[in-house]
Amino acid sequence: MASLPTVLLAACTALLALAAPLLAGDPDMLQDFCVAEYKSLEGQNVTGAALRVNGFPCKRPENVMANDFFSDVLSLPGNTGNPVGSAVTAVNVDKLPGLNTQGMSISRVDYAPWGVNPAHTHPRATEILFMVEGSLTVGFVTTAGNLFTRTVCKGELFVFPHGLVHFQRNNGGTPAMAISAFNSQLPGIQSVAVSLSRVSPSMPTDVLARAFQINAGMVDAVNSNSAPMY
Amino acid sequence: MASLPTVLLAACTALLALAAPLLAGDPDMLQDFCVAEYKSLEGQNVTGAALRVNGFPCKRPENVMANDFFSDVLSLPGNTGNPVGSAVTAVNVDKLPGLNTQGMSISRVDYAPWGVNPAHTHPRATEILFMVEGSLTVGFVTTAGNLFTRTVCKGELFVFPHGLVHFQRNNGGTPAMAISAFNSQLPGIQSVAVSLSRVSPSMPTDVLARAFQINAGMVDAVNSNSAPMY
Amino acid sequence: MASLPTVLLAACTALLALAAPLLAGDPDMLQDFCVAEYKSLEGQNVTGAALRVNGFPCKRPENVMANDFFSDVLSLPGNTGNPVGSAVTAVNVDKLPGLNTQGMSISRVDYAPWGVNPAHTHPRATEILFMVEGSLTVGFVTTAGNLFTRTVCKGELFVFPHGLVHFQRNNGGTPAMAISAFNSQLPGIQSVAVSLSRVSPSMPTDVLARAFQINAGMVDAVNSNSAPMY
Amino acid sequence: MASLPTVLLAACTALLALAAPLLAGDPDMLQDFCVAEYKSLEGQNVTGAALRVNGFPCKRPENVMANDFFSDVLSLPGNTGNPVGSAVTAVNVDKLPGLNTQGMSISRVDYAPWGVNPAHTHPRATEILFMVEGSLTVGFVTTAGNLFTRTVCKGELFVFPHGLVHFQRNNGGTPAMAISAFNSQLPGIQSVAVSLSRVSPSMPTDVLARAFQINAGMVDAVNSNSAPMY
Amino acid sequence: MASLPTVLLAACTALLALAAPLLAGDPDMLQDFCVAEYKSLEGQNVTGAALRVNGFPCKRPENVMANDFFSDVLSLPGNTGNPVGSAVTAVNVDKLPGLNTQGMSISRVDYAPWGVNPAHTHPRATEILFMVEGSLTVGFVTTAGNLFTRTVCKGELFVFPHGLVHFQRNNGGTPAMAISAFNSQLPGIQSVAVSLSRVSPSMPTDVLARAFQINAGMVDAVNSNSAPMY
Amino acid sequence: MASLPTVLLAACTALLALAAPLLAGDPDMLQDFCVAEYKSLEGQNVTGAALRVNGFPCKRPENVMANDFFSDVLSLPGNTGNPVGSAVTAVNVDKLPGLNTQGMSISRVDYAPWGVNPAHTHPRATEILFMVEGSLTVGFVTTAGNLFTRTVCKGELFVFPHGLVHFQRNNGGTPAMAISAFNSQLPGIQSVAVSLSRVSPSMPTDVLARAFQINAGMVDAVNSNSAPMY
Repeated sequence: MASLPTVLLAACTALLALAAPLLAGDPDMLQDFCVAEYKSLEGQNVTGAALRVNGFPCKRPENVMANDFFSDVLSLPGNTGNPVGSAVTAVNVDKLPGLNTQGMSISRVDYAPWGVNPAHTHPRATEILFMVEGSLTVGFVTTAGNLFTRTVCKGELFVFPHGLVHFQRNNGGTPAMAISAFNSQLPGIQSVAVSLSRVSPSMPTDVLARAFQINAGMVDAVNSNSAPMY
Repeated sequence: MASLPTVLLAACTALLALAAPLLAGDPDMLQDFCVAEYKSLEGQNVTGAALRVNGFPCKRPENVMANDFFSDVLSLPGNTGNPVGSAVTAVNVDKLPGLNTQGMSISRVDYAPWGVNPAHTHPRATEILFMVEGSLTVGFVTTAGNLFTRTVCKGELFVFPHGLVHFQRNNGGTPAMAISAFNSQLPGIQSVAVSLSRVSPSMPTDVLARAFQINAGMVDAVNSNSAPMY
Repeated sequence: MASLPTVLLAACTALLALAAPLLAGDPDMLQDFCVAEYKSLEGQNVTGAALRVNGFPCKRPENVMANDFFSDVLSLPGNTGNPVGSAVTAVNVDKLPGLNTQGMSISRVDYAPWGVNPAHTHPRATEILFMVEGSLTVGFVTTAGNLFTRTVCKGELFVFPHGLVHFQRNNGGTPAMAISAFNSQLPGIQSVAVSLSRVSPSMPTDVLARAFQINAGMVDAVNSNSAPMY
Repeated sequence: MASLPTVLLAACTALLALAAPLLAGDPDMLQDFCVAEYKSLEGQNVTGAALRVNGFPCKRPENVMANDFFSDVLSLPGNTGNPVGSAVTAVNVDKLPGLNTQGMSISRVDYAPWGVNPAHTHPRATEILFMVEGSLTVGFVTTAGNLFTRTVCKGELFVFPHGLVHFQRNNGGTPAMAISAFNSQLPGIQSVAVSLSRVSPSMPTDVLARAFQINAGMVDAVNSNSAPMY
Repeated sequence: MASLPTVLLAACTALLALAAPLLAGDPDMLQDFCVAEYKSLEGQNVTGAALRVNGFPCKRPENVMANDFFSDVLSLPGNTGNPVGSAVTAVNVDKLPGLNTQGMSISRVDYAPWGVNPAHTHPRATEILFMVEGSLTVGFVTTAGNLFTRTVCKGELFVFPHGLVHFQRNNGGTPAMAISAFNSQLPGIQSVAVSLSRVSPSMPTDVLARAFQINAGMVDAVNSNSAPMY
Repeated sequence: MASLPTVLLAACTALLALAAPLLAGDPDMLQDFCVAEYKSLEGQNVTGAALRVNGFPCKRPENVMANDFFSDVLSLPGNTGNPVGSAVTAVNVDKLPGLNTQGMSISRVDYAPWGVNPAHTHPRATEILFMVEGSLTVGFVTTAGNLFTRTVCKGELFVFPHGLVHFQRNNGGTPAMAISAFNSQLPGIQSVAVSLSRVSPSMPTDVLARAFQINAGMVDAVNSNSAPMY
């Protein structure tokens, strides 16, 4: 519940807002950046008007700060204590408002020993992975069904072409860490396994059986696996 | 200075706004799709603020349904009982909200015997026409004034390059039907004849006369034709 | 083997080519279209110079014909006598030269009774599917793991958002047929099953096992399936 | 099996290829600009390989000069002694190589007294017209059939939205001159009248008659007009 | 000060807004243009909802007029009585609402005798400069550090490639005037000198000293210059 | 005039070209990637035909290897023993062929103690900088002349918006290292200082003097600095 001062503050804000047109003059030049105004997503119930746009609306430029372009989220390792043994920590437009309209985002991926970042696609981006620590086996699959794979060690990098299925595996007994950059402010992650066997509602069994040329019992065996997914 | 009721209204608005985050939860990842929220067009009178954007704002993701990506509008033939003998039924972003930001739309065109879909452009799209039933003479005109034309029969297709003038004519005594796809969520249709002789307000007579190298009387004869246009 | 006259012709051609700059007029206006010149892919061994570009080079405009924009490839059903019971016949820039640079392509999909077009992505396109005959269960999976699914009957259509995993299944005992349009001249098809279990070289077993949370034996059981893939 | 001369040729080609890097040096950074290499259009007969691309290939950077970005073509008026009383002088990528890949071009339009630049579209561009001398009536037509029109005098400007039909008419007894900029290196001009009645081969008469709701005789009267078109 | 009627109006507006969905008809076709609705920038504090988007929201189409595409701002010379001896008068989306989403803008540049338009970039556009009066020395610098420069006289034009540093100088004793077109609705101007020595807050002295390889005293000498900047 | 050997070479070339179609088979699906074929830049002297395109032509897909997507160039520090105390090691499309058409590139920046990466722009990209070691003061300047600056430490990141002037300075007595990603395969670097005082040929003195509001002597003092530039 909002406190009394909050209400008074809001009231004053509203007063100022009504006065704003008189004070504002010409619109500022906004377009060096369009820092995401997350509050627009919350405000829509007020008037019934929809405020969600493709990406995000922009903060008023006078409210933009250097911190809108800064993040320390990647300074800590993700928790790799899960069945696949890896953790993706993403800094995209949902986390860093300054990325809005700038066409980029970045992630940190931590790998437990022998941990795997399972096969997945980014429907909206190319990826460049740079190894900060350790060594991985990486690979991507073309639409022609060819696997391009090799080892990537500390200080080395690999490119995963736009939209193709790819994976990484820690090929050592020590933790590994990589930084991945994307040319989309929100590239999306679509895990191949999740998109098949852990969707909600469930994928029809016969669709899976036909796809993998296996019988329904085997599909159920795969699907019944209840390990929590990151 | 704002009066007391204004302050109270503002305070309530602010309270609602502060409450919204508690109800809405974190903003979801929106960007697999941005299903058009048509209501945003209706809401703008509330605050005097404009809510129309290039395309449409997005529905809240929790309100998106499979039906937002589905249409049965093309299952029925259009009414070809008009002077040109054809009818375009369009499923674009104005009709199907799931098309918003997806870069595509689709139409059904029905043709009466010998019916014509007169010369027109789509200012924002290429078109692929697929014949479902019957046979057409189709053609497009290049900027160099060359006409590329041929017959297209059931099961065949033809490409109309981006933005160029093109037409179709049913070259048989039975109805025909085609499906056309576009790489724009709202390609637009600009009929050449309509853009000359049936605009509102009227095109200056001498502009038309000069264009076609005809006299003003002939322009008037053309323009006085009062057949209703689809 | 080339005859002597051919050699002389080539020599003369080469001489003319060297003189060409002196004779040649202005370059033609090429850009209403850039019809794919497939021969450029074959010629590159001649000089060691690479002629492959993103998409295709263009034919000389004076060689372009209406037929470059026409295809009858979709007029015949594909052969659905395969393990999945469906067949995709694609008309993309590899088949229809007029599609080059136009940003679109189109496919016909035939389904045997209860046939499945297994889960796949198009890394470079949105898809609109239009039912010409029969009835399908269709669906797509979001990056958040939600399945949007419903039935689509004759004359109805469904949109699969850009890059997301999707599938179709004939939900009846008679053949079905759909036309799908894409906003890419070569959208690509990446079958989820193929990208996991039938790539060349093989995906590491432990990567698959981790992804699906199954043991290596089950992975082998899936992979050992030797049914030919369309 | 390859013949001896072929093998020798191949060997020489390979030697040349190996030598080339020593002569050519590292590839320069090309991409501040890609100045059109017009000779590529003339050279294709040498090897049978197609060299036309979407736009133009680039000159070697060491051959690029300031003059590649300069033109004096617009310093002289066009000849308005034609039936429509106007002349468009275009500086696009076909005339100015430095425009290649830069996304812009520019034209000068001269108008005789009461001269008309007849209704036309640019399939690939928006246009901003700036009046250098005289006064015009200008207008464009929306896809909804609305005409937006007004007078534009010396020093004033008008915007024609992307791809829509528009025209200009000198509304005075003295010559007028305007400069028009486009956001395409080759916007294209598609005259509405030309695309209907002066294409090659001819548009079918009944297609025109249906479009304008006039009889075939009137179509012939329009088409028989033999005035030369600019 | 808000009067009682204003308050009542606001209350009624709010009531109407809640009812609006019930009253409103179909959304109009908006997309031939999206004329900027500047009022959206002023209204946002009212409800706490952010209304700034990348570019501008659109006016209701029924409120769009021919004047939204027209400007007479360039008909008068800018004031060149400043230290650099030049004045840029811009007509971009901040001044001309019809430019919104159309991808273009235009400026007039006036030059006093020997006046300079100092080195600057447009972060988001290519520029074509057309000389209306007088003569300039123009130039741009590539990322490889090469200067491309030459003289441009009345009726001539020059292209400044996308994003590169460039400048102009009046090379005569009489005023000069040019029109520059850009392929962005808001190209931005980033003066090299301003971005170094007149930013707010100040650039660290040692960063400047290192960049120019000069000592801190010289940096201060440059920065202490207090001439007002346009 | 062409010599006899030239004619023979051309003849043989033509023979090979005629044979090629028989050997080559259908064009492969190229478009999951278009790995840069650097040899195309070297080969153009063979036939006189220009092969440079916007970006690079593609390698034959059967020649593409995993190594085309891999680089170890960033595993070693750059040499910061230069006047500015920093070194940029870039992995862009000129170094890593797999980046061609993928819309991304990456750099490593090493900083000597108190070293500076002087003010510069990337004309074609946004940048995300991730700190691997040490601590920097970073900043960018808007077109409105505002400086956004702050400290970035190990594991933290900062976004430099598309095309704006920015810089970094090591704010400690130990070396620092950062990885920067860009959403362009060749973003370009335009040093502000270099673009003013070390271009070839020289920028006119009065243009610089006017820009910085300093006298010609001071310009010469700056320019006469002869420190080698990285």
